[in-house]
Parts: sequence; C-alpha cells; structure tokens
Amino acid sequence: MPTLSGGDYTLVYNLFSFTFAAMLASFIFFVLSRSQVAPNYRNALTMSALVVAIAGYHYFRIFESWSAAYAINDAGQYVATGAPFNDAYRYIDWLLTVPLLVAELIAVMKLGKMSGMITFRLAAAAALMVILGYPGEIAADNGTRALWGAISTIPFVYIVYVLFRELGPAIARQTGQAQVLLRNIRLLLLATWGFYPIVYLLPILGVEPTSALVAVQVGYCIADVAAKCGYGVMIYAIAREKSIAEGYMLEAKPATAAGD
Amino acid sequence: MPTLSGGDYTLVYNLFSFTFAAMLASFIFFVLSRSQVAPNYRNALTMSALVVAIAGYHYFRIFESWSAAYAINDAGQYVATGAPFNDAYRYIDWLLTVPLLVAELIAVMKLGKMSGMITFRLAAAAALMVILGYPGEIAADNGTRALWGAISTIPFVYIVYVLFRELGPAIARQTGQAQVLLRNIRLLLLATWGFYPIVYLLPILGVEPTSALVAVQVGYCIADVAAKCGYGVMIYAIAREKSIAEGYMLEAKPATAAGD
Repeated sequence: MPTLSGGDYTLVYNLFSFTFAAMLASFIFFVLSRSQVAPNYRNALTMSALVVAIAGYHYFRIFESWSAAYAINDAGQYVATGAPFNDAYRYIDWLLTVPLLVAELIAVMKLGKMSGMITFRLAAAAALMVILGYPGEIAADNGTRALWGAISTIPFVYIVYVLFRELGPAIARQTGQAQVLLRNIRLLLLATWGFYPIVYLLPILGVEPTSALVAVQVGYCIADVAAKCGYGVMIYAIAREKSIAEGYMLEAKPATAAGD
Repeated sequence: MPTLSGGDYTLVYNLFSFTFAAMLASFIFFVLSRSQVAPNYRNALTMSALVVAIAGYHYFRIFESWSAAYAINDAGQYVATGAPFNDAYRYIDWLLTVPLLVAELIAVMKLGKMSGMITFRLAAAAALMVILGYPGEIAADNGTRALWGAISTIPFVYIVYVLFRELGPAIARQTGQAQVLLRNIRLLLLATWGFYPIVYLLPILGVEPTSALVAVQVGYCIADVAAKCGYGVMIYAIAREKSIAEGYMLEAKPATAAGD
C-alpha cells in the first residue's frame, strides 16, 4: 500500500462512511416501503433490502479494513501498517448482490412463467462476471488485469443482450409510467454497471499508483450507491406505479365510507 | 495452530465473512417473507429465521476468533498468536440449529396430530448427533475422532430412516409442486448433512494438518450455507406453493371490491 497524504486518506475514509450510511438508510427505506406496494411486488422490495443490507455489512468491513491498513505518522502522512487492505470484501459483496439486482428487475416486471428461467440465466451470468473479474483485480501486473477484465466482459455483454433484446417486447407490453421507468432503469443498470469496468481499468490507464488506489475506491463507492440505492429506489417507483395501475388501495378511506 | 500462507489465511477469513453475510441476508429474507405465506406456514419461516440468526451470531464469533488466533509476520505468513481458535462455536450453533431444521420441515408439512411426536424424536436425534460428534472434533488423535464420528452416525441414520420411511406416505399425500419440493428438500437435507461427516473425516484421511485445517473450515462454511440458507429458501418455496394451493390471497384486491 503506497503512502497517502492526509487528504487522500480521509477522502477514501469519509467516502466509505458515506456509502455505509447510504446503504443503511436505503435498507430502512426498502423495508418500510414494502407495505406501500401491492403484495405481488413486495418480493422485489425485499430483494432491494437484501442488496443494501449485504452491501452495508461489507462497507462496514471495508471501512474497518481501511482504518487498520494505515497509521498516521509525524508528518501527517498515512503509511501502511502492514495489515492488508482486504479488496475481497467487494467481490464477495458483488457475488451476492449482483445476481439479486437482476432478479429484482425480473421480479418487478412480473413476466409470469418465463420469470424463473430468465432470472436464472441473468443471475448466473452476473455471478460469472464477478468471479471472472476477481483474478484481475488482485493481479500485480496490468496484463493479467486487462486479460481477466476482458474475459469478464463476455457475461456482461450477454446480460445487456438479454435486457435489451429478449426483454424488449415484455417491456413494450407494460403500460404507462411503468414502461418509461423500466426503460430508464435498464439504462441506469447499463450506465452503472458500465462504470465499474472503467474504474477497474484505471490502474492500467497510466494513472500513477497512489492516484489509482484512491480513484478506484472513490469510483467503486459512487458506482455502488447508484447501482444499489438509486436502482432500488427506481424499483420501488416501478412497483408503486404498477400497484396503483392495478388498483391497489394505498389511500386512507374516509371513516364514513369504511364499513368496519 | 499451524502457520498459514497469506492465501490460505485469507481464504478462510473471507469465507467466514461471506457466510456471515449470507446468514444476515437470509435472516432478513425469512423475516420479510413471512407475510407472503399463509398464517399456517409462518411458524416454519420463523424457525428458518431463528436458524440463520443463531448461525449469523456464531459466524461473527468464529470470524473474530480466527482473526485473533493469527497475526501476520514480516514474511507475509500468518503465525499463531497463542489465542485459541474456538471450534466449540460450531457445535453450540449446531446443537441449537440442527433440531430447528428438522422441526421446520415437519412444520411446513402440517402433519396434524403426529407432528409433535415426530418433531420431538427427530430433534432429539439431531441434538444427540451433534453432541456425540463433538468429542471427536476436539480429539488430538484420529482414533478418537473416528470412534465418536462413528457413534454420532447412529442418530443420523435414524433421522434418515424417519425422513424416508416414516414420512414417505405423508409426503406422497401432498399435492402438486409442494410434493416435488418436499422430495427435493429431503434430498438436500441428506446431501448437506452427509457432507458434514466427510469434512469431519478430512483430518483422518491422510490430509496434512495445514490443508486439513483450511479444508475443514471451507467445507463447514459451504455445508452451513446450503443446509441453512438454501434449505430455508426451499422451505419458503414449499410454504408459498401450499399457501397458493389453499387459496391464500396474495394478490391486491381492486379498490372497488375492497369493501372492508
């Protein structure tokens, strides 16, 4: 681990804390908002809650690992303590959460009989993408990083293909605002998931090691907040729109009209 | 405790963390999914939630115990600190969770009057199996390990006998998808519970101590995730199928029809 300036160290430290807080708040939001959508869509919100709970746990661990990996010296710089900064937490997190993210999209679409098979294919491709990226992340040389990065792009391309080609007709059948939101969430997924490989490639793109270390951590935090919290809020919005469209009662009835 | 390479130490460390995260996520899932099944089946989901809560607690402790038992040296190897790695956590965990796992299977089957007695016999056998395995796990010599391993197989064989012979007719009376799932969950229980003795026997099978230590921990983690989280998800699926078959309302009622 390279020596960091006070500014660099605390930037990463505070961003880890911010991301943990975002996951915690999102978790509470998704749990409490389950009752705001029709029972059919509660599974999707449950999955959103699982994703941010898993990520919150891992950000807590990442934060602790970062704190343990560095100690401040007399010059105000942060030097490595020898305790390793454990990058594996991110990958274990993604291994669990990325399949859930595609599963919740399918759950909120309510595709009927084809749901199970599409969910399985997307979740398997998502897990494969994460597994294939890991050897590159921990590799010492850029060639290995580039190689595994390229290989893990194959399942990513497959996911994009399924989302935009196979699911196109199903999205076109959705009505009103839900259709617009589904088109948008697909773009959000593409944009955020496409952001991870850019961060992954930073060490290769001639960025010097200290800046690359900081930039990778900052980048992954931003991507995780968008891809988990932001994405989950959109899943909620879709579930809410569909619940209202299907006539699910969310408003309080006047006391006189309620016959109980 | 033998000295471990960085790779071996972090493999076990990350797997403990992964297993904790899996238990945490499963706990949230089982608690939130209780409302998705008919009231008759909520007890089974409550038991699933208890199992993964107990296991999550113990994995947190095991993780801490593992961290405390080792310290990194200048060569990047992990050497024993002298703090003992506490294997008893697993057995305390199993003593509580294994009887619950058989109890939730009987709870989801809804056997009527015979439920109580079968649950008691299976839970007692499960507890006995765990208690009899422990002296072998902490034994220094392979002979003692093999002896207690063999003795604890007796209640395991009894459990298999009850599940496949006594419960066979009850499962045959279940209808549709629920029957298929019940047959599958019985196989999952047999496969995962049969995996524990294999892990238990690794130190006897001529595996050298360092590899055996790592392999036993990795093996138990995988078995626990399958036997607790995976099993619980199948219990949920069975409860969901039976709820739907019995006409439990999960769909939103149109606003006009909601006359309450």
